[in-house]
Amino acid sequence: MLAFSDIQAAAARLAGVAHRTPVLTSRTLDALLGCQVLMKAENLQRMGAFKFRGGYNAVNVLSAAERARGVIAFSSGNHAQAVALAAQLHGCPAAIVMPHDAPALKVAATRGYGAEVIVYDRYKEDRAAIAARLAAERGSALIPPFDHLPVMAGQGTTALELIEDAGPLDALIVCAGGGGLLSGCAVAARHLLPDIEVFGAEPERGDDMRQSLQRGEIVTIDVPRTICDGQQTQAVGRQPFEVIRRLVRDVLTVPDPVVLDAMRFAFERMKVVLEPSGACALAALLHHRDRFAGRRVGVTLSGGNIGADRFVALLTGAERVE
Amino acid sequence: MLAFSDIQAAAARLAGVAHRTPVLTSRTLDALLGCQVLMKAENLQRMGAFKFRGGYNAVNVLSAAERARGVIAFSSGNHAQAVALAAQLHGCPAAIVMPHDAPALKVAATRGYGAEVIVYDRYKEDRAAIAARLAAERGSALIPPFDHLPVMAGQGTTALELIEDAGPLDALIVCAGGGGLLSGCAVAARHLLPDIEVFGAEPERGDDMRQSLQRGEIVTIDVPRTICDGQQTQAVGRQPFEVIRRLVRDVLTVPDPVVLDAMRFAFERMKVVLEPSGACALAALLHHRDRFAGRRVGVTLSGGNIGADRFVALLTGAERVE
Repeated sequence: MLAFSDIQAAAARLAGVAHRTPVLTSRTLDALLGCQVLMKAENLQRMGAFKFRGGYNAVNVLSAAERARGVIAFSSGNHAQAVALAAQLHGCPAAIVMPHDAPALKVAATRGYGAEVIVYDRYKEDRAAIAARLAAERGSALIPPFDHLPVMAGQGTTALELIEDAGPLDALIVCAGGGGLLSGCAVAARHLLPDIEVFGAEPERGDDMRQSLQRGEIVTIDVPRTICDGQQTQAVGRQPFEVIRRLVRDVLTVPDPVVLDAMRFAFERMKVVLEPSGACALAALLHHRDRFAGRRVGVTLSGGNIGADRFVALLTGAERVE
Repeated sequence: MLAFSDIQAAAARLAGVAHRTPVLTSRTLDALLGCQVLMKAENLQRMGAFKFRGGYNAVNVLSAAERARGVIAFSSGNHAQAVALAAQLHGCPAAIVMPHDAPALKVAATRGYGAEVIVYDRYKEDRAAIAARLAAERGSALIPPFDHLPVMAGQGTTALELIEDAGPLDALIVCAGGGGLLSGCAVAARHLLPDIEVFGAEPERGDDMRQSLQRGEIVTIDVPRTICDGQQTQAVGRQPFEVIRRLVRDVLTVPDPVVLDAMRFAFERMKVVLEPSGACALAALLHHRDRFAGRRVGVTLSGGNIGADRFVALLTGAERVE
């Protein structure tokens, strides 16, 4: 299982490479909610999301010989760019398996980091199988998006820095997809503050992690229909779940319109851009505020990779939010 | 004339009260422009703009007896909120003279800081006269938005912090309306780095400062039609101009569509929100990039007070940008 020392080692590797992102506060938000909120702004991280931490750590732990044979990842989102950038920084080749209908902007960004993009048909082909076959053919290292200890350890440095900079917290709310960030943060937070309550936050329509925690076993759901595109995972990862079942107090679910409210609040009052999944933990706090009254609450703002045009579409209803 | 020691004194007063805002960098921007850009994120300042610095300093330099008689400001924008918040923090009354058609959000925000809002008809009444009469009746101190040494000194702490945190710069681009920020920053920058070139940035249609600098005397223009609502001043202030004519190299003008490009770039690549005037200096760098190739350039991101709905209107063309 993931240990605190893994996170400390990841922090040492990331020092001077990842941004030490600021902890944002908002007196308006504190007054609105009746609690004190400390927000870790990973939307200001390199490539715009916490994923850089795990991707970099996972590439860095490889031997020079392993790196020379390249790395492979499959992702349509931030993990792809994280691994591509991490590989570029290590001077090693990267191949990213992406769906044929991935946004052109993301494909371009991934190529911009020097990675080879391998396109597959998401309705006919299995990306994990494609990536595994490629890894075997090339001898490359596969870097999974969350079910991988070096990735989890890297993501855990988010909570480590937050607590170092913000001081003691009563609770921590972390957005949850496959559980990489949540598990890493739970290990860091519970080690530093044994009494802290750690919560996951996920979209109401994609509540597989809440179900899994309740049942004590991993529940798989259909691809959820939610604006939170970073959390359309169907099941929590096995290794993250081992951590989460022990260290996480509860998983809070959030309706999509509240996620949009949180994005708007961040824009108008905090002057920062959050993508839907990046706003999910803040939205969970807005939606479950009674539970946190009078407390000192950490929140991850996990990413800001949203085009201005999609932001407009969400605000105008051109993309339905329900 | 404004002295560097005034800015140092303002910095001491602001310590622990104003945010020491981060200096943002973007590798993408640097690669795009072929220079190194260090951006002072005053959109993350308290109340969302650098104006808090000058407003707070101007209230703070008053004696306790003066403060007890209250402060008055006239402004439809960020200066109003800055003075209102500064007065609240000093426990003294504030009256803000605002036009009858000021955005409801701004009126509400000003009242939210505990200020009395005095409404006037912008087509029939003279706000300066109203404010002066009120100040005389009540014995209150009038705090002008830019033509006032304590305000200029407070704004100058922006460049002081930027250079302390970012190190030496070859050039500094500062958005310019009435000249409070530009004059304060010019004094700080030229004192710390005698060879630095300081530039103002203003909307092309409101180029009164460029004209004034060229002619060597203050030029007054009609209220300019520009999306940069923080820079719709008709003339630079007398005291700021005394500084600017001596210390500022040039004033760069920017078409409104380039301002919008800069806002979009900040949103998509830097994940921060800029209001049009807050993006003007960055837009000037985009528009005049050849002039800055190979150099280390400081840029003020001066404010982020824009509602999400107006951002949408600008991006969709519902508010014309030409």
